Amino acid sequence: MSDAPARTVHARYPEHLRQQVDDYLDGLWFTVGDSREAAEAAGTEGLVEAMRYSLLAGGKRIRPVLALATAESLGREPADLMPAAAAIELVHTYSLIHDDLPAMDDDDLRRGMPTCHVRFGEDVAILAGDALFAEAVRLVCEEQGGGPVVQAGILREISRATGVAGMVGGQYLDLKGAGAGGADALAAMHALKTGRLMAVSVHVALVLSPPPPGQDAVYRAFARELGLLFQIVDDILDVAGSEEELGKAVGTDERLGKVTYTSLHGMDRARELAAESHARATALLEQLPGDVDDLAAVADTAFTRQS
Amino acid sequence: MSDAPARTVHARYPEHLRQQVDDYLDGLWFTVGDSREAAEAAGTEGLVEAMRYSLLAGGKRIRPVLALATAESLGREPADLMPAAAAIELVHTYSLIHDDLPAMDDDDLRRGMPTCHVRFGEDVAILAGDALFAEAVRLVCEEQGGGPVVQAGILREISRATGVAGMVGGQYLDLKGAGAGGADALAAMHALKTGRLMAVSVHVALVLSPPPPGQDAVYRAFARELGLLFQIVDDILDVAGSEEELGKAVGTDERLGKVTYTSLHGMDRARELAAESHARATALLEQLPGDVDDLAAVADTAFTRQS
Repeated sequence: MSDAPARTVHARYPEHLRQQVDDYLDGLWFTVGDSREAAEAAGTEGLVEAMRYSLLAGGKRIRPVLALATAESLGREPADLMPAAAAIELVHTYSLIHDDLPAMDDDDLRRGMPTCHVRFGEDVAILAGDALFAEAVRLVCEEQGGGPVVQAGILREISRATGVAGMVGGQYLDLKGAGAGGADALAAMHALKTGRLMAVSVHVALVLSPPPPGQDAVYRAFARELGLLFQIVDDILDVAGSEEELGKAVGTDERLGKVTYTSLHGMDRARELAAESHARATALLEQLPGDVDDLAAVADTAFTRQS
Repeated sequence: MSDAPARTVHARYPEHLRQQVDDYLDGLWFTVGDSREAAEAAGTEGLVEAMRYSLLAGGKRIRPVLALATAESLGREPADLMPAAAAIELVHTYSLIHDDLPAMDDDDLRRGMPTCHVRFGEDVAILAGDALFAEAVRLVCEEQGGGPVVQAGILREISRATGVAGMVGGQYLDLKGAGAGGADALAAMHALKTGRLMAVSVHVALVLSPPPPGQDAVYRAFARELGLLFQIVDDILDVAGSEEELGKAVGTDERLGKVTYTSLHGMDRARELAAESHARATALLEQLPGDVDDLAAVADTAFTRQS
């Protein structure tokens, strides 16, 4: 937030993990042979181009970085979880593409660039979203290590987090103005729409490296909290953020008449809620035995981000 | 085809399998508790209603019936493969919903009923399609028996069949008029767009009950052939079918300027191609040791269907 109260930042955002994510995503061509040439030979390079356009538009990669940082805190190499982490970013990207469509939020700008349907047409954008989802599942089935137990476990988590009782259900509630039902309804909607995909980024690491039950519960509470924190800050930025830094239009929520943390509680109280959520997330991390510096940095970034 | 040459029908369409599929699909509410009440309590009943509207619109259920008939021919109970078979029908339904959207084929009628976006709005239709895909994956992860090896194997097949090198890639090629590249390009496009999802209905049964390699190859060749047959007949029906029987507008392909088997080869030759494909499919079945009556009936229906 541009005028958030001064606070101690515990650690720097794990740029090395973001870089690894970016490198991995940049290598995806969704075609046997994994190259532009292979996509051209198949005639689907236009579809792949639209998928990569939205996928490689940058951003903090907070979900896959969160997955990798969780795996690290459990003593694993980031590479061990990269396909699942990337799959979550593919799912996130597909949801942005479909959310931006004229029939949905009708946004023309995302991360400073024309949205997928503005650039490639609505038809291709719909298919690019659909294909990213299918390719996310394929990535886990074909590339994720740990064998079928881990693969099926990760897909169970991702599918639960993205179906009716997850992201898409939350988008539906948002569409239908469920946030207007008051603070509890708003929180419940966001828990599905944004929270579940954020939380599942932690959960996939728990599938790969199951910690003892007590730790597992702390990780899950942290995951939930981070989803909440991220959404409160999103709402604040939609009002107080700079269009230039955000790379998309501000005031979209107000234009669409959406109930948000700021419209419901006012800006000052929304900032307090964000600070309280961040404090709870940090306190949870202190209960964990592993190296949680990178996880703390992700929580800090979720709190202090300007875009 | 309404005036197809008289021929021997080997067996009756396996209505008992279709009934089992319909009963199973009718029990899906995509909500913990699996009931309308549970969906209402979650606030997502409108989304679930749209999903069920399109899912329960009837039809021959040829893909899931094909999956179950293949499992039977391998000595398994249909129930053993029902979640995976249903998942394929969910994926098929999601693809129809997205295909019908105004930005895509812009169809108002499907199986004699208003299409999903006409009935529920474009925004809900987009989300209903997205949710059906996620719920298909969840169904396999949570309900399909055989353990993680079978679950991950089935999802590998389904995700390959539906991504860039499958159904969505084929829809993209269709959109871009790839069929205009001649007979080979048309066949290649259909192999992705329609053929892969038809073939995967056989493949999931092979994952559950792997036959010896020689039989496996015959099953896969049969699966490919059936996809081709189905598409040729689709093209014929789009020209020669009755709007009443089809339950959707005829002449859509011509309106959209699409290249089809009939536009490319003429109606008479298209009918010959269908007959040849049916004969090849039947000949392949004769090489299999199990009870293939139901599979033969599916192939017959794919050939003689009027809708």
